[in-house]
Amino acid sequence: MKIAIAQLNPTIGNLDHNAELILAAAQQAATQNVRLLLTPELSLCGYPPRDLLMQPAFVEQMARRLPQLAQDLPPQMAVLVGIAVSNPTAAQLGGKPLFNSTALLQNGQVEQFFHKRLLPTYDVFDDNRYFEPGSASEYFMLDGLRIGVTICEDLWNDANFWGKRNYAVDPLAELAAQNVDLIINLSGSPYSFAKQQLRESMLAQATQTYGQPILYSNQVGGNDDLIFDGSSVGFNRQGELVCRAQAFESDLMTVEFDPISRDLQPSSIAPQPQDNAEIWAALVLGVKDYMRKCGFSKAMLGLSGGIDSALVAALAAAAVGAENVLGILMPSPYSSDHSVSDALELAQNLGIQTQILPIGELMQSYDQSFAELFQDSEFGLAEENIQSRIRGSLLMGISNKFGHLLISTGNKSELAVGYCTLYGDMNGGLAAIADLPKTRVYALCRWLNAGDNPVIPEHILTKPPSAELKPGQVDQDSLPPYDLLDDILCQFVTQHRSPAEIVATGHEAATVERVIMLVTRAEFKRKQSPPGLKITDRAFGTGWRMPIASRWLPSSVPASPKIALPTRS
Amino acid sequence: MKIAIAQLNPTIGNLDHNAELILAAAQQAATQNVRLLLTPELSLCGYPPRDLLMQPAFVEQMARRLPQLAQDLPPQMAVLVGIAVSNPTAAQLGGKPLFNSTALLQNGQVEQFFHKRLLPTYDVFDDNRYFEPGSASEYFMLDGLRIGVTICEDLWNDANFWGKRNYAVDPLAELAAQNVDLIINLSGSPYSFAKQQLRESMLAQATQTYGQPILYSNQVGGNDDLIFDGSSVGFNRQGELVCRAQAFESDLMTVEFDPISRDLQPSSIAPQPQDNAEIWAALVLGVKDYMRKCGFSKAMLGLSGGIDSALVAALAAAAVGAENVLGILMPSPYSSDHSVSDALELAQNLGIQTQILPIGELMQSYDQSFAELFQDSEFGLAEENIQSRIRGSLLMGISNKFGHLLISTGNKSELAVGYCTLYGDMNGGLAAIADLPKTRVYALCRWLNAGDNPVIPEHILTKPPSAELKPGQVDQDSLPPYDLLDDILCQFVTQHRSPAEIVATGHEAATVERVIMLVTRAEFKRKQSPPGLKITDRAFGTGWRMPIASRWLPSSVPASPKIALPTRS
Repeated sequence: MKIAIAQLNPTIGNLDHNAELILAAAQQAATQNVRLLLTPELSLCGYPPRDLLMQPAFVEQMARRLPQLAQDLPPQMAVLVGIAVSNPTAAQLGGKPLFNSTALLQNGQVEQFFHKRLLPTYDVFDDNRYFEPGSASEYFMLDGLRIGVTICEDLWNDANFWGKRNYAVDPLAELAAQNVDLIINLSGSPYSFAKQQLRESMLAQATQTYGQPILYSNQVGGNDDLIFDGSSVGFNRQGELVCRAQAFESDLMTVEFDPISRDLQPSSIAPQPQDNAEIWAALVLGVKDYMRKCGFSKAMLGLSGGIDSALVAALAAAAVGAENVLGILMPSPYSSDHSVSDALELAQNLGIQTQILPIGELMQSYDQSFAELFQDSEFGLAEENIQSRIRGSLLMGISNKFGHLLISTGNKSELAVGYCTLYGDMNGGLAAIADLPKTRVYALCRWLNAGDNPVIPEHILTKPPSAELKPGQVDQDSLPPYDLLDDILCQFVTQHRSPAEIVATGHEAATVERVIMLVTRAEFKRKQSPPGLKITDRAFGTGWRMPIASRWLPSSVPASPKIALPTRS
Repeated sequence: MKIAIAQLNPTIGNLDHNAELILAAAQQAATQNVRLLLTPELSLCGYPPRDLLMQPAFVEQMARRLPQLAQDLPPQMAVLVGIAVSNPTAAQLGGKPLFNSTALLQNGQVEQFFHKRLLPTYDVFDDNRYFEPGSASEYFMLDGLRIGVTICEDLWNDANFWGKRNYAVDPLAELAAQNVDLIINLSGSPYSFAKQQLRESMLAQATQTYGQPILYSNQVGGNDDLIFDGSSVGFNRQGELVCRAQAFESDLMTVEFDPISRDLQPSSIAPQPQDNAEIWAALVLGVKDYMRKCGFSKAMLGLSGGIDSALVAALAAAAVGAENVLGILMPSPYSSDHSVSDALELAQNLGIQTQILPIGELMQSYDQSFAELFQDSEFGLAEENIQSRIRGSLLMGISNKFGHLLISTGNKSELAVGYCTLYGDMNGGLAAIADLPKTRVYALCRWLNAGDNPVIPEHILTKPPSAELKPGQVDQDSLPPYDLLDDILCQFVTQHRSPAEIVATGHEAATVERVIMLVTRAEFKRKQSPPGLKITDRAFGTGWRMPIASRWLPSSVPASPKIALPTRS
């Protein structure tokens, strides 16, 4: 029996478009005699639809669209479509109004529904806000085979794999106990760094444990801050990878299920990008899809001559083509000569357009406006920020005038400690590298330059990073060296370690305390930041829900001998 | 037996401060021979602590603080304290790592824990992200009385009252079946308009149904976008209100429980503000607490001479004192004369300071910067927005220089349809009236003026609203009249009605479609807006989780005969 996975890139809420994607995949699959077609989780509305699910008209439109799709599909094919459906007993028995479901479409009909049982509520997930968990794990019969249906999180509760239970029930174990021949999974599993290795380890162990093959169909594409990486896979009952779809691209992958051996047969295995190549591919897809799905064809950004904007320019060019990217240089009297020359060299290497708008006169105009009010004070943060806000206003003026998407260039390290200007360099519709620590920005640029076409001028990689908001300023006047800072941030933000635990790894207590204080105080800036493409397990996006007017500063840093701060390597 | 409710205003995460609030209330209660003291939900950490709960060090600090508090409390008093505690079987049985609990402190000990059973996940609530539901509703014995313990949402599942079940279990019914003498509830129930009436109706019905009195202890104070209104109450077994604490203020309320009649005795009933007075009190508290808890003593805002900034100036003056409020007037060549004179009159009425910073020269500087790039285009939205961004940058410059909190002045109607400038008039640390529709802004100002001290100049109330970003501009050039707009917005945003349903209430189909399109397209602006004080059931804050790059525009508006748009009344 031939099975196909349609690794689709739906647009949230665009039901007709998404239905057409499913239909087109089915028609292509039909030419290959596919008997069963899988699509991703909630493939009809796209994942995550979030509060669109609170509009009854939206849910009704979905419910009407499904039987229509069933009629349009090739009748000889069984197609599994993801859809949110009403929970008919919610009002009577108590419960959420919807199920997150998989619909089996066949013979022109909607034949059966399967409901997601494990509803994630951690990180970016709010499944429990909308959905009632399904009460049983079930299979359907196809050509004499029992095919067990799971949805995304349903697979993520293997106590042996995780060393603990995440949920009270394990759908996988329940299906295995029903002696199914194949377990299929419709997923909307967002990308984070190296997550595919985790998924494959988990699926390998699950298939080995139960001796039942698994086919895993993941969504692909960018939806706001979330990137879905695709990389749908199949594992046979020996726990071996038998097929893998493209990473970060739509795909239609076929695989043969042999009814005699009751197992998946080896098929094509697409290469999985690793390390920097993986992050690069994720970010390019995130930028491309945000622009496409919001209706932008051209991107723009401020080019400072620094490494962050260099990387974002390269990303934008890769996402929508260099000819569709405009870089704006906005030197001030405090800008170094190389800030312009490095930016122009970068732009030339990339082939993007540039404009130069010096800001000196605008700075003078603001100085004059503030002259009376600020007369007794010295040049300080207010004046530094004004420069950034002039640039932000110029960028938005151009964005408004020409309809380009402004992409902001801040990295995760500065967003964490607030080393960025609200309404200034934070401006933009999308923050492309907001989840990349500064050290990773460097690594990614070096990787990019090691490729066929080195585009980042070497000087951008070697000069000390600087916001250039006052003469001679460098980032390390205000911040610990980035390798130290990023390590502390990773421990505090991602791993939720206490100050004492971080100090125990060799950091100076005063530095740790200061970094944590900066992180806590910068919450108000993050609250107003554009969506930032999620790359790590813990991004400052929809999965970061921190109070602002709060006063928890862990004060348990033990007194420790002064540790000399190493200089930047 | 004397019982007291400590209606506290904790600061999120400030465990020592919150413990001191509890202790001070207990000491005061001890002077009145109080036997049992209630505090609000999660009173030790403040509600909602959000992702602070993901830091193990935070949870551990709370766990250590509780027995210390127990030792410090008057030993003869039973005190109920809200705290998040570890779920010891989470890893083994599956489940969330914490319980949302009430601790019974007595005799210097932590004697017992009670866990919240119904975990809300709608609107602003994420309880299920952190907490495992408790599995049973229990009581404790005090002087021979059975006192049943519930936490907030546990009371909100009366199928008779709501006409439907919200959850599968009903803790209230379970406690009633155990023949408790009194049901107590520790709440962190955020304010929304007229919610107290709803709470009291619900509690009246519950006490009548089960014939058991209820004491309801609510948190008070502002925490980011949420305002907690206090108004803690008691209902006797006949369903009569016997006591009510202050609205929007900390309070210590005592009430007598008579062990013979096994009922609460009538006590003091604080007045409950209604309608505009209620909203006003809520907003003043929201501004005051955001400032206090973030460490600001002075506020500032842009004064345009319009009604929104007039209301926000009055709010700020009421919250922190007129002497701590600075209004900045930033007239442009397009500004009317009355924009300055009305603003100055307002400032004089309020007694706040002002500064005038004309923006004409800055506009010219931007024009010159853009001259070459914009040479082939006409004056349009880009230029209009520049004026707003100049003002936003001036305001932030002053805020940065002097450490004043900038309060933004946008209302809900403009935030809904995007009639506001990102990085311009949206700038600020707090959006004081972001959940007030424009028609409510007018109503609130008229109510304010009807009081002892009319402060809003009459001309501000009567002139047509205008952003004054080009000559002769008024809001209604771009938007439907506000009474129509607000009605459509209420139906679409709050009531989740479909376009067809809205049209059926008498609105023109084209207007409805246009408004819905504007709302959908403005999502990117709302994503970057400051926290806005929540006043309605459906605010654009933590409870609004809408995708940006999405394409659902309900297209089911039926063709309808042209309905003449009524002019503004």
